[in-house]
Amino acid sequence: MATEKCFTRGSAAPGPVPKGHIRLFSMRFCPFAQRARLVLAAKGIKHDKINIHLKEQPEWFLEKNPLGLVPTLETEAGEVLYESPIICDYLDEVYPEKKLLPASPFGKAQQRMMLEHFSKVAPYFYKIAMAKKKNADLTDLKAELKEKFVKLDEDLAKKKTKFFFGDSITMIDYMMWPFFERFEAVGVLCLLDDTPELKKWFNRMQEDPAVKACSHSTETHQAFIKTAFNDSPDYDYGL
Amino acid sequence: MATEKCFTRGSAAPGPVPKGHIRLFSMRFCPFAQRARLVLAAKGIKHDKINIHLKEQPEWFLEKNPLGLVPTLETEAGEVLYESPIICDYLDEVYPEKKLLPASPFGKAQQRMMLEHFSKVAPYFYKIAMAKKKNADLTDLKAELKEKFVKLDEDLAKKKTKFFFGDSITMIDYMMWPFFERFEAVGVLCLLDDTPELKKWFNRMQEDPAVKACSHSTETHQAFIKTAFNDSPDYDYGL
Repeated sequence: MATEKCFTRGSAAPGPVPKGHIRLFSMRFCPFAQRARLVLAAKGIKHDKINIHLKEQPEWFLEKNPLGLVPTLETEAGEVLYESPIICDYLDEVYPEKKLLPASPFGKAQQRMMLEHFSKVAPYFYKIAMAKKKNADLTDLKAELKEKFVKLDEDLAKKKTKFFFGDSITMIDYMMWPFFERFEAVGVLCLLDDTPELKKWFNRMQEDPAVKACSHSTETHQAFIKTAFNDSPDYDYGL
Repeated sequence: MATEKCFTRGSAAPGPVPKGHIRLFSMRFCPFAQRARLVLAAKGIKHDKINIHLKEQPEWFLEKNPLGLVPTLETEAGEVLYESPIICDYLDEVYPEKKLLPASPFGKAQQRMMLEHFSKVAPYFYKIAMAKKKNADLTDLKAELKEKFVKLDEDLAKKKTKFFFGDSITMIDYMMWPFFERFEAVGVLCLLDDTPELKKWFNRMQEDPAVKACSHSTETHQAFIKTAFNDSPDYDYGL
């Protein structure tokens, strides 16, 4: 395994994607990149990973993806993909091991609709982190997030399933997880005390091998967030 | 064909989806619903269509889709789908006639990445319409939109194709079209004079049978927009 340290402006370009591998451009603390890492881990896909300095991207990376964002995926054929749901769906379609999306068109549509709903929950991590940075009052943000948690809790209670699409982990659980890991780091996970089904889901997720393999501790997240607050995010924190 | 007039609060619920059909809940002037109408028309899918009053939705419609939005799709089995890209991808997957998405996983990913880019262009229709309502200066908005048009123009020039994904119409063209139809209605289509490839695409699109079947004239759009400006959108305008 190559270094986890991030590649920054001026870094030498890596060689071509190794034969039989796929390459993920990532950043160790990015929740969107973590989605792709979770899918790679859950499906056991051979890959290599290159971490990118998101404030000073290497020139060769910007040539591949002018948006400069992670996750970005590069195939052996030099095809480049970005946007976490697009990357994750692609990986699930191309690699037959342990399918994470349902086979039926309606099942796939349901997963995408759930993700669309969740896209209104995920930003609360950033909103709450920013509010904390400014020492602002969190009351309203917490109330809004709690309302979202209640809806998710009701959804699980109605479905009577262990995860959001049945009794096994599927794609939607991995899409949601990185934000819950970070809700803990910004101190709002206590909201789960009022949403017992969602709390059980959170606890079950922590037992999943892919989640275990791709997570940071709350303390590590907090330490990284602190460096980000100071406008000099330490992408290599803890290495 | 049932009435095109919209169903509003208090309207009697329609019967079940007719056998062998699929049902689209639509609104005649909604660009997102038009995407679904284009796909239904292009693929020749048997369907019925129910137009919804978007300010006073029928109670039975809110039971099917609590968000109250169009497009919403209902299958014979009573499955409910919403969000235009999810509906359109579903229709393309379920109905084999005239595939609009490429078969390859990377091709599908490319279409979704293009749609993601376009999601930053589409809102200009609403921004410009709102600015016109307020008699605000359009200079900045037009400059921003022109920049987006230039990127799309460069994309076509680089690809040397008639449409955005080859020399035939595919899904991405239909996803983009409804907004171009409305850019004309809000008077910013003159921007195409500086983007010749995009202008050629616009003209080619107008020749497509599905586009012809699903379009309103610029005058009709303008008349509807005028009623929307007065906060009483006439969803039945022209019927």
